[in-house]
Amino acid sequence: MATKINAGNFFEDFRVGQDLPHATPRTVTTGDVALYTALFGGRYALQSADTVAQALGLPRSPVDDWLVFHIVFGKTVPDVSLNAVANLGYAQGRFLKPVYPGDTLSARSTVIGLKENSNGKTGTVYVNSVGMNQHGETVLDYCRWVMIRKRDENAPAPEPVVPDLANRVDPASLQAPAISLAGLDDTLTGSRWRFEDYAVGERIDHVDGVTIEEAEHMMATRLYQNTAKVHFNQHTEGQGRFGRRLIYGGHIISLSRSLGFNGLGSAMWVAAINGGAHTAPTFAGDTIYAWSEVLETAELPGRADLGALRLRTVATKNRPSGDFADKGADGKRDPDVVLDLDTWVLVPRRG
Amino acid sequence: MATKINAGNFFEDFRVGQDLPHATPRTVTTGDVALYTALFGGRYALQSADTVAQALGLPRSPVDDWLVFHIVFGKTVPDVSLNAVANLGYAQGRFLKPVYPGDTLSARSTVIGLKENSNGKTGTVYVNSVGMNQHGETVLDYCRWVMIRKRDENAPAPEPVVPDLANRVDPASLQAPAISLAGLDDTLTGSRWRFEDYAVGERIDHVDGVTIEEAEHMMATRLYQNTAKVHFNQHTEGQGRFGRRLIYGGHIISLSRSLGFNGLGSAMWVAAINGGAHTAPTFAGDTIYAWSEVLETAELPGRADLGALRLRTVATKNRPSGDFADKGADGKRDPDVVLDLDTWVLVPRRG
Amino acid sequence: MATKINAGNFFEDFRVGQDLPHATPRTVTTGDVALYTALFGGRYALQSADTVAQALGLPRSPVDDWLVFHIVFGKTVPDVSLNAVANLGYAQGRFLKPVYPGDTLSARSTVIGLKENSNGKTGTVYVNSVGMNQHGETVLDYCRWVMIRKRDENAPAPEPVVPDLANRVDPASLQAPAISLAGLDDTLTGSRWRFEDYAVGERIDHVDGVTIEEAEHMMATRLYQNTAKVHFNQHTEGQGRFGRRLIYGGHIISLSRSLGFNGLGSAMWVAAINGGAHTAPTFAGDTIYAWSEVLETAELPGRADLGALRLRTVATKNRPSGDFADKGADGKRDPDVVLDLDTWVLVPRRG
Repeated sequence: MATKINAGNFFEDFRVGQDLPHATPRTVTTGDVALYTALFGGRYALQSADTVAQALGLPRSPVDDWLVFHIVFGKTVPDVSLNAVANLGYAQGRFLKPVYPGDTLSARSTVIGLKENSNGKTGTVYVNSVGMNQHGETVLDYCRWVMIRKRDENAPAPEPVVPDLANRVDPASLQAPAISLAGLDDTLTGSRWRFEDYAVGERIDHVDGVTIEEAEHMMATRLYQNTAKVHFNQHTEGQGRFGRRLIYGGHIISLSRSLGFNGLGSAMWVAAINGGAHTAPTFAGDTIYAWSEVLETAELPGRADLGALRLRTVATKNRPSGDFADKGADGKRDPDVVLDLDTWVLVPRRG
Repeated sequence: MATKINAGNFFEDFRVGQDLPHATPRTVTTGDVALYTALFGGRYALQSADTVAQALGLPRSPVDDWLVFHIVFGKTVPDVSLNAVANLGYAQGRFLKPVYPGDTLSARSTVIGLKENSNGKTGTVYVNSVGMNQHGETVLDYCRWVMIRKRDENAPAPEPVVPDLANRVDPASLQAPAISLAGLDDTLTGSRWRFEDYAVGERIDHVDGVTIEEAEHMMATRLYQNTAKVHFNQHTEGQGRFGRRLIYGGHIISLSRSLGFNGLGSAMWVAAINGGAHTAPTFAGDTIYAWSEVLETAELPGRADLGALRLRTVATKNRPSGDFADKGADGKRDPDVVLDLDTWVLVPRRG
Repeated sequence: MATKINAGNFFEDFRVGQDLPHATPRTVTTGDVALYTALFGGRYALQSADTVAQALGLPRSPVDDWLVFHIVFGKTVPDVSLNAVANLGYAQGRFLKPVYPGDTLSARSTVIGLKENSNGKTGTVYVNSVGMNQHGETVLDYCRWVMIRKRDENAPAPEPVVPDLANRVDPASLQAPAISLAGLDDTLTGSRWRFEDYAVGERIDHVDGVTIEEAEHMMATRLYQNTAKVHFNQHTEGQGRFGRRLIYGGHIISLSRSLGFNGLGSAMWVAAINGGAHTAPTFAGDTIYAWSEVLETAELPGRADLGALRLRTVATKNRPSGDFADKGADGKRDPDVVLDLDTWVLVPRRG
């Protein structure tokens, strides 16, 4: 009787060009939105109120961009990263279409690179993953690379292929929703700051901190149907490297995004993921803070109402963000830094 | 570069008559209702089953009154109470219209009183807050007063204005939903007790106790988009007055309301908040019990099917409610009492 | 003034043939579904994606069978098991109709047996419980027996009536949804295993373990409006038999069902409950594992597309399931086993 258990793919199971259609499509509902609000406390007006979305010409509030990301990411886990040692990076991520409650998301990935590590025990797998809605439209497209264990250390190393990934998404390629910002009311968004008010080099301390509980990160990660074992099993993890369940890195992204409302309340869309690194593990009981820096500003072709800010967002654990913890003079990242994320967000222009 | 952080208003920022439109309108959904059920376990039939609501002539189950309250309250926090030392009281609260899933709530407040404290460091701010639906109809109207820090102790004290707030809502002003209770089935509500069965002075021990977890109160409070810092940040609060995250007082109100089902299962609407005080802090790990006393009964003009009970509900922590913990002979409240709430609820009449 | 508190029925309050209509009908929503996903992480495609359900001819994703069970079970608690010492068993359970978001569930029970224990302090109550939708159609029908305290040890023992309950549901009586599996895509379900691939005697280790938190099991149990005291009150339970809040046995069933996806991903419907026993208590902090054994396979009359597997699912706490913990040579169950559940599930045929 063949085993019926999915043990996931090991490094030697991947081939460049391989197509990985992922299981378990997922209808996103207002139930998911409510849970996401309860877990992260988002206050961006567009995602909070159908009336705000409708005033801008959308049918209703779209689902938070990062909730879309986490659901798509979750689908890739059983095929891509069940045997991962580390999630190494993201690039070329773009949110292409709004997702609404009632939409059904599915995902597939293509292997775009492979490189065995010199120790012969692991290798890096590069994938391009896309999330699609029920109409077959791509709503999210991103690349990720991850270090995967080999099943058999004697398996031969593949020809190394390292894809040439852009270190930033070209702002001319950003997809802005088809909306009209003419009627945007700053009172509703809770922020009077617009595109013109942000300057390259500006740093924003998001001030607040949020402590994470085991129940919260596990509920969030299950909501995304993400099955990575390290998040859920204290019986095993208690005997592991950290002695603790490890929190899904995406949990810190979502917390940082919610904390970022204070200072970036009008940054209603995440348009692109230029890059990102989960630089240190987090555990239940940790308190997360975040700060952001404006790396670039960009006008959008044909859009007088919206501009793009390229933001670097840094999250720390158990250390307030007011001193902007970062890399030191020696180039080493402060050990309190747990996330270093580079995104494009869209912000209304003063018009 | 001006700071983009909302530091909230300090006592000297308020003016009597000041209008505070609050940010982040919020579409309430069945997702919120499900979470509220999971957090508090409400069993009132009208809010639980669309079929019950429809049998009474409503389009579907309305959203729990206190969930409406918490969402509206949450919107006021960034403008009213971000720098609060203490939430002092409520008065003249009325629930005026049912709220249904799909409705979008927004809120605004008017400053109706100011009184600096003699220490010159803080003052009391009185506000009248209203919650509105997407049609601009007021669904909730209440007054609250709160002690707020001054930013600058040298700022001059304003002329004191203390509003004259009624110590109870006139029952003739209560808004009963336009329903017909002719077909109400006591089996469905789980309670055979009706208006005529309750007597002034009667005390009801609600018997059960519920222990609160950190994940629960934080998820609830974020669901309301309430950003008060003391509820979320153990890193800071661990060094603070209590060494613990403080639980939002409204969490205790909702728990008490759910506990109150046992003895008051037919009390399907909260119609008014006469007053309320959060008399001691609560923390994760505390077990909440509650008891109620009937303070008054009132017939409603033109309604033969419904009557109003004025209830005083007292919640205790880590002390069963069977001995009706209360003020002692010396007038001091028992330190185990954490909530003292005065409401009008509507109850079917025997007809 | 008569007490208005529901103290529940005691053993001597039950009569054979007694009809117990239960309170608080409950409209199930996508909010409940989202919470259930967050709590258990189910990945069965049919329940996850409306598109999958629609491709099979259903209007949308049905609600997970066990969520339906828990909601119906929860309604029975105030009348049947508020004074229970132990939940002893289940038999003859059948899921008869899909439940969809928007449906309203109600429940009633009939007492089908009574037997006082020789100690004169407790007795076993047997009930047949049914869950109905808003059209009065039965969606779930099951028997359960439970040990209940007597209020008065001197109350006379009733004539013992022990119903003759089948030890398995006849597979010819299973209700399969009216769907067409012609278009089922194994990629979507995440499992290429079909009816023909499972053999009697086959054991499947579901591999993964999940640690339970207090907030999670309490939120789940409240979501079902299950009011059994032992799950919620640490203040009382801390002084009780275990010193801990006891986790609702149904929580372990749902966890096992979700864990079972790994190896049984195509087993999209639970059709029947042949029997089940909660063999040891579980507490927050426990990590649950599960394994299953195929006890029988059965073709379904007139269905070439679907077959039934009779599964025994055993859950353990803090012990991986790879060694298939079970009864020993002495017939005693391993103390790490917490659930022993016997169900029929429906699985697509290779066609």
